[in-house]
Amino acid sequence: MAILSTMMKRSSILLLLPAVLVSAQTFQRLGTCPTLGCVIPPDQTDFLAGQHFDIRLEVHAPVNGSEAFNEGVPDDAFTFCIEKVGSKKGCVDAAKFFGVKEPALEKWTFDYFEDLFAQDAGSASVVNVASKAFRGLSLREPGEYLAKLSYYGGMQTVAHWAVPKPVTKRTAKNVIFFIGDGMTQNMITAARLIGHKSINGRYQTLMQMDQMEVLGHQMTHSIDSFITDSANSASALMSGKKCSSGSLNVWGDSTPTPFDDPKMETIAELFKRKRGGPIGMVSTAQIADATPASLCAHTRDRGTYAANVFEYLHSPQDLNSTLAWPTGCGGVDVIFGGGAEQFVAGKGSWEGKDFYQEFAKAGYNVVQNKTQLEGLSGSKKALGIFTVSHLSKWLDRHVYTNNLSGQKNSPTGDGSDATDQPGLKDMTLKAIEILHAQAKKNNTGFFLMSEAASIDKMMHVLDYDRALGELLELDDTIRATIQYLKEIGEEDDTLIVVTADHGHGFDVFGGADTKYLAEQDTDRAKRRAVGIYEQSGLSGYQVVSGSLPNNNTVVFGDQGPNFPVTWNPRYAFAAGFGGTPDHREGYVVNSGGIRQPTAEEEDGFVANPNDQPNGFHASGTLPPSSGQGVHSLTDVSVFANGPGSDAFRGVYNNVDIFFKIANALGLAGGD
Amino acid sequence: MAILSTMMKRSSILLLLPAVLVSAQTFQRLGTCPTLGCVIPPDQTDFLAGQHFDIRLEVHAPVNGSEAFNEGVPDDAFTFCIEKVGSKKGCVDAAKFFGVKEPALEKWTFDYFEDLFAQDAGSASVVNVASKAFRGLSLREPGEYLAKLSYYGGMQTVAHWAVPKPVTKRTAKNVIFFIGDGMTQNMITAARLIGHKSINGRYQTLMQMDQMEVLGHQMTHSIDSFITDSANSASALMSGKKCSSGSLNVWGDSTPTPFDDPKMETIAELFKRKRGGPIGMVSTAQIADATPASLCAHTRDRGTYAANVFEYLHSPQDLNSTLAWPTGCGGVDVIFGGGAEQFVAGKGSWEGKDFYQEFAKAGYNVVQNKTQLEGLSGSKKALGIFTVSHLSKWLDRHVYTNNLSGQKNSPTGDGSDATDQPGLKDMTLKAIEILHAQAKKNNTGFFLMSEAASIDKMMHVLDYDRALGELLELDDTIRATIQYLKEIGEEDDTLIVVTADHGHGFDVFGGADTKYLAEQDTDRAKRRAVGIYEQSGLSGYQVVSGSLPNNNTVVFGDQGPNFPVTWNPRYAFAAGFGGTPDHREGYVVNSGGIRQPTAEEEDGFVANPNDQPNGFHASGTLPPSSGQGVHSLTDVSVFANGPGSDAFRGVYNNVDIFFKIANALGLAGGD
Repeated sequence: MAILSTMMKRSSILLLLPAVLVSAQTFQRLGTCPTLGCVIPPDQTDFLAGQHFDIRLEVHAPVNGSEAFNEGVPDDAFTFCIEKVGSKKGCVDAAKFFGVKEPALEKWTFDYFEDLFAQDAGSASVVNVASKAFRGLSLREPGEYLAKLSYYGGMQTVAHWAVPKPVTKRTAKNVIFFIGDGMTQNMITAARLIGHKSINGRYQTLMQMDQMEVLGHQMTHSIDSFITDSANSASALMSGKKCSSGSLNVWGDSTPTPFDDPKMETIAELFKRKRGGPIGMVSTAQIADATPASLCAHTRDRGTYAANVFEYLHSPQDLNSTLAWPTGCGGVDVIFGGGAEQFVAGKGSWEGKDFYQEFAKAGYNVVQNKTQLEGLSGSKKALGIFTVSHLSKWLDRHVYTNNLSGQKNSPTGDGSDATDQPGLKDMTLKAIEILHAQAKKNNTGFFLMSEAASIDKMMHVLDYDRALGELLELDDTIRATIQYLKEIGEEDDTLIVVTADHGHGFDVFGGADTKYLAEQDTDRAKRRAVGIYEQSGLSGYQVVSGSLPNNNTVVFGDQGPNFPVTWNPRYAFAAGFGGTPDHREGYVVNSGGIRQPTAEEEDGFVANPNDQPNGFHASGTLPPSSGQGVHSLTDVSVFANGPGSDAFRGVYNNVDIFFKIANALGLAGGD
Repeated sequence: MAILSTMMKRSSILLLLPAVLVSAQTFQRLGTCPTLGCVIPPDQTDFLAGQHFDIRLEVHAPVNGSEAFNEGVPDDAFTFCIEKVGSKKGCVDAAKFFGVKEPALEKWTFDYFEDLFAQDAGSASVVNVASKAFRGLSLREPGEYLAKLSYYGGMQTVAHWAVPKPVTKRTAKNVIFFIGDGMTQNMITAARLIGHKSINGRYQTLMQMDQMEVLGHQMTHSIDSFITDSANSASALMSGKKCSSGSLNVWGDSTPTPFDDPKMETIAELFKRKRGGPIGMVSTAQIADATPASLCAHTRDRGTYAANVFEYLHSPQDLNSTLAWPTGCGGVDVIFGGGAEQFVAGKGSWEGKDFYQEFAKAGYNVVQNKTQLEGLSGSKKALGIFTVSHLSKWLDRHVYTNNLSGQKNSPTGDGSDATDQPGLKDMTLKAIEILHAQAKKNNTGFFLMSEAASIDKMMHVLDYDRALGELLELDDTIRATIQYLKEIGEEDDTLIVVTADHGHGFDVFGGADTKYLAEQDTDRAKRRAVGIYEQSGLSGYQVVSGSLPNNNTVVFGDQGPNFPVTWNPRYAFAAGFGGTPDHREGYVVNSGGIRQPTAEEEDGFVANPNDQPNGFHASGTLPPSSGQGVHSLTDVSVFANGPGSDAFRGVYNNVDIFFKIANALGLAGGD
């Protein structure tokens, strides 16, 4: 069993390997722990010098199943030591190495299914665990470390950790980090097609992203699965650590509670702790949602919304006083988004409290609509919550405005409609104004994260028109941000990074004559309306109704340049997804509101007969339990401008983005 | 009608536009010609200083349909002049401007359908044409030009042409241009997943493409449709001009013959003419296929295979002596690929001649298998044709080798099997060896295009396993090329560019338990085998059979590093396409040969019941006339190394790549 329980060195290569056990892959006993002894942070983890983190050790004794071992009795006499590679001290007992007390032994039991057959049969595998956890540590000296867990007599798990040489020279005063949630290059290309006019194959205007100084790609996979969720991919960007699907700034352990999993310090916490500078979060989502929460929250379950918002105002340690954690966001300086559920006193808020009041008591200006937002000054911290749930979409706020009625989404929670909502550009520019004013006090610079959340949310429901509207709004926001930074004299001091957290397998593959499609009687005849190659034609979205469709003239629609002239052309683009639920498709814009592609029946989701009623039926490839589209594997693009942006060239892992931003801000080392 | 017939200046923006006519977009009267007067090269064309091109002028008189005009009588008294912007001479009659004779007037008639309704009704719109053509011209002075066609009394069409300031300083001695046909970033990401081992979210090895010095993106759309074909996208890369789907280095006019359309000079012709250096083409496709043909061929119809090969050995002028064309490839120095149909004497070859003999007579070494290829010296030009049609796929040549039998694809045309085939790496390294030897004679440097053609061909038939095998072979070829250039001392003098010509809307969205899938009875139950997010698991392709699937050990399969350890894991990736025909899906490798997803029936293509027989049925989104997947819109990645590579950073149009390569070789200006 020695080979099974020894993790490999980073550089080790074996040409063959003894066959040991066969177990399922899609159901894992515990991600990052292929052996019976788990070291968390796991093998292959890099830390910024001085970055805080927790350690969790687990020794597993499966009671039954293919991995049953030691009659289900876990070794509670395991030992754990840390060896700095090249140090003469060898492997030093961890408590001594970090200068802390030996943690108490913990024990629990969990179960899991080995595969789908086991799940169908209800045959769970039960595992008994012996464990210890260290809290709030850090590694300050650069170099490589071996973290060795010894158990069951001769078994050992070795995790290789590394601390890159710190870059302490700060090159960027401010950082603005734009996240287009779920935004792949395919969508950026499609947005360019509908938002910009091309004449004889040459675009007359370009996306702002097209014009950024630096282009890179980042890999988005999870630590223990190749498709990521928005929570752990956002955590990778913010803390430089891969973690498991659904996690926010913690590595998943096997305990039942989501709040005691081993934590990692985020870029926002580091910037607060080391620079004392103001931080901001802007999102078109519910503000407790995964991407904004990734700045501050530490939880195994992204759905702990009330606690996420608690961490925007307080620290993780205030949430659970038994878990030492020397940092925290401790009062995010600007918070703009949706999600009144966590602010109106009630079941959605932490301990049922009125969090508008909690923030006001902490010295915040609190606003609830666009008009109030515009009136905010930079003198105080600011909280702006503009809707229940996610903000309305760009397409509904600008084109199909009737859809704003009847939503009962007022941020006051009084059941009225939130008709005076800001957009991403309004929120972002105001956030910069306030952060800039706050940062002047101690010349600290600022850190802002701004998320176009509903690119992802609309792609999930196959509403690609709304998704591309959100994407064009993001692009317009970046354009306006660069202009505003110029105006306030901060452009040369500000690193702007634009990227996504993951993809959706979306692409445009042709055009569709929507008139012809709607008038055909059968599914197969309707599909004849799709034009491929030369019959895809030119973009109908830049054609003024009634004019020649291939007229070589540049015009602006009501929304100005960089947006479509029309959203419902007869000749629409035809697009699709690699993985979908059963649905209907007619390639027409959903002018009546957000698309609802599926309906739930007894055996799962089926195509919603009321969606795209003149379209054809398209059977899906996803499990019937999925009523939406899903994330995909593809690398996503990174665009950057300003000081420190050169580091974003080329192809790298999403975790590297944290280090590049931290380096630009000179956050490594020091205290 | 004045506004209708005046093309806009590049920088002109109109806020509104009079409504004129409504016509179809997916069926165009003539691409690049929205008015009744057509100037080809069309508006927005850039030329390398001194690059040769033809001009075609057409005046249209539609007889019927929505654009009917002048009772179907075209104006044959049209005039055409060229104005160099800033010149005091004003607009100079074109014959005088270029110092050539006024061309003869030509007349013809063509018809087209305005939309699908017209097509269904068989109601064609007939157009009478008056036309002239100028042949073999060039613009040498940098600057902007207005090409003005005046017709029907007061109508005018103005095309804006530009000649960028020539870069005459040569930075790269050699250029190697790799094209992964149809290769999107989504596929590169998927290939990394199956070919490289990841431990806890960190890849232990990387794709060679990931490690290139420079990353860029290029837009692939056609001149007159947003989805491109491989012919015109390859022409854009090779000649710097957008053209119409199916065209090779010509702009499409409305004449019936494919050989008289206005031509553009390619990078290969320029390199031959200006540097006298050797050029090479390598492809895993039939060598007359669109991408290799884009180096030399000039045709409106990519399917003119025999003529394409004729142009590898001769010039366009030899093909049609009435069309003056002062350049041509005139003997490509190295040609390696498939496509014996154009070489064996018979109906597939030019004038029925034995083109093996034609090349041998012209001084070529001629080879027909891998063993002979390896024996080639660099003393002479070389032709290697290794199969009828396209070469066999990497997966069949290396893993499922039984599939090489019974193909009757010997390049001799004798009906035996081509069992001794080289791969892309073998052909490319040998091509470099020969070109390097040839280039030494006059210290000219060399130009090589190497195409991994079957990434595209296998994606078309939804055989993504074979496609990714081809992609990994391309990556392995790039790796070996860099190593070989180091060995021969040419690395620092060689610009390497890697890109694709277009995309396919492919992405991985999860994992699939293929065992569970095969054992379920219904389509919906089978789809339960697909694991999304955390249940996508880790890559099964890097797991040794019988070992723990999430074992943290790096092993090599039979094919060495950078390839999968197994191609048929129980836990396979689940991938899909935005647009597909009806098909079946089971996520298992097609071990018995190339996938055949569809079968043809009376009303079009349906799912082939013998493909993925244990899978589930997935209905398509493409027209029933399409038996394959199709190209997609997305921008594709560009990777570059070496002198001149910095120019490939950022986001640009595919036509810009021609200029970047031409600049590295200093091909502008001069004679």
